Amino acid sequence: MTRRRLDDVRRLLVARRLDALVVSHLPQIRYLCGFSGSNGLLLVTRTTDVFATDGRYAEQVKQEVNGPRVAVGAGPLADVIAPRVRLRRGARIGFDPEQTSIAAMSRWRSSFRGAMFTPVPGLLDPLISVKDHDEIEATRRAVAISERVWKEVLPMVVPGVREMEIAARITFLHRLHGADGDGFEPIVASGPRGALPHAGASERRIRRGELVTIDFGCRWKGYHSDITRTVAVGRPSPPLRRMYQAVLESQLGSLLMLRAGVAAREVDAEARRILRSHRLQPYFRHSLGHGLGLQIHEQPRLAPTSSDILRDGQIVTVEPGVYVPGVGGVRIEDDVVVRPHGRDLLTSLPKDLLVL
Amino acid sequence: MTRRRLDDVRRLLVARRLDALVVSHLPQIRYLCGFSGSNGLLLVTRTTDVFATDGRYAEQVKQEVNGPRVAVGAGPLADVIAPRVRLRRGARIGFDPEQTSIAAMSRWRSSFRGAMFTPVPGLLDPLISVKDHDEIEATRRAVAISERVWKEVLPMVVPGVREMEIAARITFLHRLHGADGDGFEPIVASGPRGALPHAGASERRIRRGELVTIDFGCRWKGYHSDITRTVAVGRPSPPLRRMYQAVLESQLGSLLMLRAGVAAREVDAEARRILRSHRLQPYFRHSLGHGLGLQIHEQPRLAPTSSDILRDGQIVTVEPGVYVPGVGGVRIEDDVVVRPHGRDLLTSLPKDLLVL
Repeated sequence: MTRRRLDDVRRLLVARRLDALVVSHLPQIRYLCGFSGSNGLLLVTRTTDVFATDGRYAEQVKQEVNGPRVAVGAGPLADVIAPRVRLRRGARIGFDPEQTSIAAMSRWRSSFRGAMFTPVPGLLDPLISVKDHDEIEATRRAVAISERVWKEVLPMVVPGVREMEIAARITFLHRLHGADGDGFEPIVASGPRGALPHAGASERRIRRGELVTIDFGCRWKGYHSDITRTVAVGRPSPPLRRMYQAVLESQLGSLLMLRAGVAAREVDAEARRILRSHRLQPYFRHSLGHGLGLQIHEQPRLAPTSSDILRDGQIVTVEPGVYVPGVGGVRIEDDVVVRPHGRDLLTSLPKDLLVL
Repeated sequence: MTRRRLDDVRRLLVARRLDALVVSHLPQIRYLCGFSGSNGLLLVTRTTDVFATDGRYAEQVKQEVNGPRVAVGAGPLADVIAPRVRLRRGARIGFDPEQTSIAAMSRWRSSFRGAMFTPVPGLLDPLISVKDHDEIEATRRAVAISERVWKEVLPMVVPGVREMEIAARITFLHRLHGADGDGFEPIVASGPRGALPHAGASERRIRRGELVTIDFGCRWKGYHSDITRTVAVGRPSPPLRRMYQAVLESQLGSLLMLRAGVAAREVDAEARRILRSHRLQPYFRHSLGHGLGLQIHEQPRLAPTSSDILRDGQIVTVEPGVYVPGVGGVRIEDDVVVRPHGRDLLTSLPKDLLVL
């Protein structure tokens, strides 16, 4: 599997007239050769590839790394790699300028003397954003774990419980049911805290009549789930109900737009159009969604400024929200595979307003 | 508090003949101005300071940021800052080359045209590594939460339990008892898995007669605890007992060396010397310890190659270990404040071999 991905990279090298690509971003390293540790460097040339890490991972690489030659060494990893590859004088080596520090570049320059380092921002994004069958199944598994956790955690969402008790329980159950761990710290935002899109979970106790937004997800073999549901604890007021219905309509409407070939910003625009018809568009202050994979935020972006065109096999979140200061918030988020003529929902939790 | 830290930075600017310092590393931003979000940039000049973030954090900065002027804006944060400060033509702006990407530098250069960017690796490390009273108390609180968790989790360390059940419980209890969350994913390594220093926690079930190494810690207001204990589940074999006693002796001996003015590598050497007297030194394959603060790994490093001299108020871990492939492992780790004439232990859990 990773062999094929490395060959895909080689095709990019030819197309971009590069002699090699140096990969230092850990999720990209994991994608290309399976390594899940915290220190590694991969060089892919037109004819070979070498992965380097340090002695702590000598055992782990034997189990994980499949594809490139492996070199375990001390000191700068570029120095471990350089003697093992032959590059022509003046070779063009591509790198990702967002993921490369000034200090790393200076080390690489002294390891690969005479090479020309060429920035290729986002070179691997198209490759990584389109998922193969195994990646979709891994994501499906992560979603299944999170959905099981959701069902087990719902009975504790009652008046008087603290937000962080719910968050702690989600984390516990994710691990217990076989996830690598949370994909991110769960958000539990009740009542007026629901108006903070990135609220975390606080000591606040949930009260009757409030909406509670819970945004959670896990990793399974590195692949992420990312789900949000908003529930009512006791009967919510009519304005809160209307907010909920508007967000649900926006979420369902934008889901219907998803298919390969559509501009991501058009899907985002549809979500906003529907919220505008409810006069709630000013309260939707983030983008509609993002790619999901070995990273919790990947390409493509579903946002007003996105230039991405959706492609078959991409996994994205669709998560419109409305946040009214002093009142509360609603967000509904599913994980979806983009398909040629539509979409496959990975999430299956019900979306009608649940009154607990 | 952060006002004083910003003034300390200004003294460094004068000493290093810089006109300004740009700070992009989030833990350093948190240290200097209190901001705990995920996107920010701070510029400190000799006369002023400006912190910039995006619209998501408009509310959060009001609660958190204390000291610098705050600017909330869209687009590159350096563009948000630049119009708000006056720098002379050719101003020398310091930056950390390990924490600055090639892409960020190119954005900064276009925001601060005509400035001379000067790498100052580790400039803030001495400042950040020495903790003030509030920082030590925050760490003490994090340690107290973790020690409470330890006592509550011990009864479940029995034959038949899976490592990850213990890890999940630790995470749950950390949150429940008021931590921000884990400081890192707990390590639970039983039996032969104890020979992997970075083992994580697996599906493996603990068996009678095994040693179990548990390495865990939390964050409280950003400050970390980091504790390891190795316990025996049922009576361990004499060789395992001897391993334990050797590591304990090494840990106690190196603790005794800790005081301000001592070279960190000497403390590390003492731990190795004691293990050598037990013929176990080849099985100690990582460094003795690290600084602890807003980051889980900070300066100083207690390692054979360290050039750090210990200073009053630094918080460090002391964690010798022995890892014998196929047999198992032992690690014992405390958190300690370096003092002029010795050390203050922050951890208080017993260290005699606990046979459960």
